[in-house]
This record gives sequence, structure tokens and C-alpha cells, in this order.
Amino acid sequence: MKGKRTDLGTADCAIARSLQVIGDWWSLLIVRESFLGRQRFGEFQKSLGLAKNILSTRLKKLVQEGILSVEAESPTRNRYVLTEKGRRLYVVLIALWQWGEDTCFDGDELSSAMVDGEARLPLAKLEPRARDGRPVGPSDFVLARKADIGFRHDALPTDRDRTG
Amino acid sequence: MKGKRTDLGTADCAIARSLQVIGDWWSLLIVRESFLGRQRFGEFQKSLGLAKNILSTRLKKLVQEGILSVEAESPTRNRYVLTEKGRRLYVVLIALWQWGEDTCFDGDELSSAMVDGEARLPLAKLEPRARDGRPVGPSDFVLARKADIGFRHDALPTDRDRTG
Repeated sequence: MKGKRTDLGTADCAIARSLQVIGDWWSLLIVRESFLGRQRFGEFQKSLGLAKNILSTRLKKLVQEGILSVEAESPTRNRYVLTEKGRRLYVVLIALWQWGEDTCFDGDELSSAMVDGEARLPLAKLEPRARDGRPVGPSDFVLARKADIGFRHDALPTDRDRTG
Repeated sequence: MKGKRTDLGTADCAIARSLQVIGDWWSLLIVRESFLGRQRFGEFQKSLGLAKNILSTRLKKLVQEGILSVEAESPTRNRYVLTEKGRRLYVVLIALWQWGEDTCFDGDELSSAMVDGEARLPLAKLEPRARDGRPVGPSDFVLARKADIGFRHDALPTDRDRTG
């Protein structure tokens, strides 16, 4: 794993880059805990049951990568808070939750659900869509060189396009 | 890492379960290669630059987990093909791509884009939504015990609800 990490990070693939930055599954579980409101070293340690040195390394990496920021709560105590970059990972967490929920549990085995905070109903399934709103299935997406598709930064979908 | 894996897998969290099943980042990169059309051991090896023994272990795990199936192409050659369970991972890959694209590259650094196969335009951003269609932001989702929210399997959103 170690030797290849650097290669992945410089690869021209946003998936590989994401995987390098998030680092490993523990990091993503720490991020999950952050979304659930945990902020202190001891809270992460208790909820994840993680060895102190491993947790410490992962927190440091998440701070380095700009996913968590450190705020001094007292001279001896820090809080770890999601940055904007970290908060955007919620889409990845929801995608992982929904895939796991659909494919990795038997019937009633999973006793919790990911719900919206207001109506407390299970979230709608994430639905990949083309820019013009057409649903995109697992065989309908490809990677293309931006140069080949006349990609321009100023032609990226706006928020209005996205919800249209 | 090793000692804790089992705990994560039995945890009542679909994210943890997903992370346990996908196993590690290499597995997800192998899945990415599958979506890009690679099927043979040598193809995966060439595109990922992965040691044979590591690739072999990961492929075996992906088959065990029902994400890839093995089809004999000849007595000495196998093809690894995504199952339905594996194909559903495309939402996770798109989520990772979009997060990486938005947060891990400078300006024009990323020269490729994830596009739909038809119009070849960048996909719309994945948009988490509540069951009634309201957009769900990073602070708007929570995990709830199904018992507490009167969750019933037959009350899951239908496809019509989802697109509504």
C-alpha cells in the first residue's frame, strides 16, 4: 500500500486523489463521528474503540489535509471540527450508507436509518444525473479528457442547472 | 486495523459495513477499473501497477463479497465482471470523484472529467435529498433507530417517490 500511495495521489483521477486524501477507512469513520457531533480526542476514542496512537495519527492527517481544523478549547484540550472541505464529504458518507444498506444487510438486520433532521424520514436514494437531468445508470458514465470534450471551467453546471 | 475490522463489520452502521466489505482503497480502484472495462488479471495489473500477490488477494476478496464474479474465458484465463452489487457502487465512485474534483485539485490541474456517455458533459453534482424532495445539506442528516421513527420496510421510498 505505502509505496503506491504517492502514485495514486498524482494520478489524473479524482477518485484516486480522494482515496489518497481520506487516507483509509478509519479516517472516514472519524469523519462520520464528526458529523455525529464528536469533537474531542476522548470522544472519538470511546466511540471508535481505536488505539490512541492510531487515532492520533489519523487526526493529524485529517488536519493536514484540511478536513478537520483544530480549535483550542483550553490549554490542554483541543476540539476537532469539520472544515468546509470535510463537510462536503457527507455525500460520500451517504453514498456509502445507501450502498451498504441496500446490499450488505439481511432484511431487518440494520436497525438504524439515515434520515433527514426535519421530517426524520429515510433520505431519498442518491440519483446520479446527467447535466440535462437524465438519470445516469452504472453503464452510462465514462471518464473523458477535458480537452476532448471542449471542457471549460466557466461552463460548469450552476446550482440552477443542477436542480433544474 | 486488522483487529478492529470485525467490530466494524458487525456494527449497526451501513457506512462501517460498506467500508468493511469494500475492504480498502485498492479494492475500490479495482472496481473503478472494472467500470472502465478491464476484466483480466493482466489488465488490472497493468493499469494499477499493483503487485501480483496484492491484486490476487483483492480480486479474491471482491469475488467473495459478491462484487465481482469470475467467468472462465479459457481453461487458463478468467474474466472478472461486476455483479449487480458491484455495479451499484458507481454512486460511491461518483461521490468520491466529485468530492475530489471539488476539493483536491488546483484550477486546471485535473485534466479529465466524469461525463455521461451520451452527451459527454460533466455529470450533475449528486444532491442528497429528503424523501419529500427537499435538499439535504451537511448539517441536515442524522442517524436514527428505525424503531424510533416508526420505520417500516414497506414504507421505503419507491422509485416514483425518488424522482418526484
